Amino acid sequence: MLLERTLIQSVGFRNVYQNGRAMGVQLRIRMPSYRGMAASLIDGISVSIGDVLAVGPGVPLWSFGDGTYTLEQLWGSKDLRWPLEEAAVITVPHEGGLSAGVHEVRIELRLRMSYIPLIHQPSVFRETRRITLAPEGDGGQFKYGVSLYSFMGDYGTVMDLETSLAVINDIGATGVEILGEGHIPGYPNPSTAFIDQWYQLLEKYSLEPTNYGSWIDTRLHPSRGLTELEGVQALQRDLKLAHQLGFRFIRPKIGVVSDDLVPDPIWQGAVERNLDLAHDLGIIICPEIHSPTPIKHPVVQDYIDLIERTGTENFGLLIDTGIFQDRPIPLRDGESPETRPAFLDGIGVDPSDFAEIAKYVVFIQAKFHDINEELEDQQIPWGPVMNALESAGYRGYLSSEYEGERTAWRAIEQVRRQHALLRGITSDS
Amino acid sequence: MLLERTLIQSVGFRNVYQNGRAMGVQLRIRMPSYRGMAASLIDGISVSIGDVLAVGPGVPLWSFGDGTYTLEQLWGSKDLRWPLEEAAVITVPHEGGLSAGVHEVRIELRLRMSYIPLIHQPSVFRETRRITLAPEGDGGQFKYGVSLYSFMGDYGTVMDLETSLAVINDIGATGVEILGEGHIPGYPNPSTAFIDQWYQLLEKYSLEPTNYGSWIDTRLHPSRGLTELEGVQALQRDLKLAHQLGFRFIRPKIGVVSDDLVPDPIWQGAVERNLDLAHDLGIIICPEIHSPTPIKHPVVQDYIDLIERTGTENFGLLIDTGIFQDRPIPLRDGESPETRPAFLDGIGVDPSDFAEIAKYVVFIQAKFHDINEELEDQQIPWGPVMNALESAGYRGYLSSEYEGERTAWRAIEQVRRQHALLRGITSDS
Repeated sequence: MLLERTLIQSVGFRNVYQNGRAMGVQLRIRMPSYRGMAASLIDGISVSIGDVLAVGPGVPLWSFGDGTYTLEQLWGSKDLRWPLEEAAVITVPHEGGLSAGVHEVRIELRLRMSYIPLIHQPSVFRETRRITLAPEGDGGQFKYGVSLYSFMGDYGTVMDLETSLAVINDIGATGVEILGEGHIPGYPNPSTAFIDQWYQLLEKYSLEPTNYGSWIDTRLHPSRGLTELEGVQALQRDLKLAHQLGFRFIRPKIGVVSDDLVPDPIWQGAVERNLDLAHDLGIIICPEIHSPTPIKHPVVQDYIDLIERTGTENFGLLIDTGIFQDRPIPLRDGESPETRPAFLDGIGVDPSDFAEIAKYVVFIQAKFHDINEELEDQQIPWGPVMNALESAGYRGYLSSEYEGERTAWRAIEQVRRQHALLRGITSDS
Repeated sequence: MLLERTLIQSVGFRNVYQNGRAMGVQLRIRMPSYRGMAASLIDGISVSIGDVLAVGPGVPLWSFGDGTYTLEQLWGSKDLRWPLEEAAVITVPHEGGLSAGVHEVRIELRLRMSYIPLIHQPSVFRETRRITLAPEGDGGQFKYGVSLYSFMGDYGTVMDLETSLAVINDIGATGVEILGEGHIPGYPNPSTAFIDQWYQLLEKYSLEPTNYGSWIDTRLHPSRGLTELEGVQALQRDLKLAHQLGFRFIRPKIGVVSDDLVPDPIWQGAVERNLDLAHDLGIIICPEIHSPTPIKHPVVQDYIDLIERTGTENFGLLIDTGIFQDRPIPLRDGESPETRPAFLDGIGVDPSDFAEIAKYVVFIQAKFHDINEELEDQQIPWGPVMNALESAGYRGYLSSEYEGERTAWRAIEQVRRQHALLRGITSDS
């Protein structure tokens, strides 16, 4: 488990309830010293949140392990410790709790250091950070998940598997999506130790495996294309692995042969020759409809034709919500409007198009890039999108795919904002 | 294991030798994609280093696991993969290798993505970074180590135990120093699983445990001081734990009663009543002489008196090289020269003072704050310091304590620079 760099952690910021009523606010704090220490060395923490809440250092309660304590109780404690590797959980009484969304949290933490002259004591640590309250609201008819793709760049540098799953659990999501060759150490032959750990962590964080991302690398060989048989074998390998880890959907990312993402013709054989296996394993194969491919497109029709022709229940469509993007992604360093692919400005598919293909859609990747502090998405029109999904009767997963700026730890906050935003829309409706 | 955020890793940058002659340069590269991939999808990497070396994409060799391959061999490979969680090792032929110190490394990495239209292929990833070559030179009469204190702020956020030990091994250091309540999960009662892991990692990274940092928290209770018996028990607890983990030195950080760091009088009883236990466990108790306490000071004399009076071989002095600091640490945000402790400007102890106490010194923490790209320390005069230690016949550890700016990942580079600097000095002499 790894902690966020800031003292004030985003993960763990929530309202706390008693008998169904919000009675306070909880947040997690990283130890600012270079060591853990006995809890009796804590001299309190002042907390203020926006202009709605401000308490002095003696007020918040402290939780370590299973116990919760007043500051006085910490002072009288003997073997209670704040370990370096664990965030302290602070509870601030506040009847009615906080409203949904982003809040400015300010802390002033006091610790007593025995080895510093008294004139410089206590040591005081101040920090201000804007963080997102854990989403509330039942989320309507949808299920909520997160793809570990959201943590690209963070995964393996500032987050590990358990940290990621804890982040997902903390926002009340129930599903986790992975990329096979990315999040399975030793792919394609994980150790039994990893598989055991995988299932233990799923249980610990109350998550179910949703979609498994795989690739059919048609350009695997520099000198020739992939044969259909090789495509069949690639998909077969990942179907078995996805099943071993408990996934119910698999998204094969298929190599393309045109600028508008027409898949290599071997896709059809690779899929059809795996339908029996997918059936036996209880997995649905679902290629993604991804910008710049709109809903009304021959590729989508080809996929639907396969379903209709074979009558299979093990093939369906995965929609990436990037197709609904109706405002441009800001140019990144070194990009110019002339050279970067035009679809990054957004292809703006009309959300009402969804109704036409809804019955074939088995999974949705909730692609997004930037949600501001007012919970306004800068690219994806979630109001109309959620409305269209709802009207069409979609009841499956919305699995977050954050694809914005890759600053370390940013994705954690962005995913929290997205879930707060989506659950806010469904609660209103 | 965690990787540095940049594609070009600092850890692993080294000259490679054949029959005692430097024949090339090696560096580690993090996968820039969001997934691992088959090695046959690599389309090469151009590397240039300063103005001494520049090679095209087909030249470097690639190592994965135990094998090393040309680009052509990667293209013909079948089950060879570049996993997301592992850096690729690149070897560039370069007779004579690189000179010691910091080098500007530029890479242009090409990967073939099957799912991107050919007009945008191959995907190209460019990065430039200044990194420090793994230190060379035998290091003279000293032993070299690193304290995990150096990674304060990074530890638990961007580095874990194994990552830290790998960083230390990579610079050819042989000793690791820890802080008991900080780097031992479940302190003071670690699990046997942790203890097993500890010894496995020491073996894997060829490291020996050196010094164990502990605290005698004289201000543990807000309303009263610590009794001598409580001090004895605190030190006893850590002595046993240090022994369990194989340490040979323990530094109790003792609470102070004055502005110039005079320790609480209970220190003497706490130490003396543990000398038999320390003897049985083969551990030397060594309080640190830390700025603003100079070498010529009553506290140091008190420590020496204890040694002389008892004749013990289980008590000695630990010198923190911060006492030799002769230039100020720059003011940090919010600090003013009036309010911050004066000793941060440096107390400038004359290195030649070391000779007088050398026979009592059992361990040295090589404290430092900032070493620039020319390997010049901005605060500690390493030339005179190393010369004084050498002349006085010190043959123990120099254990890095980086205490500078706590920007994520910065400490890794700073510790590499310090070891390159120190080994450079000893090689010259």
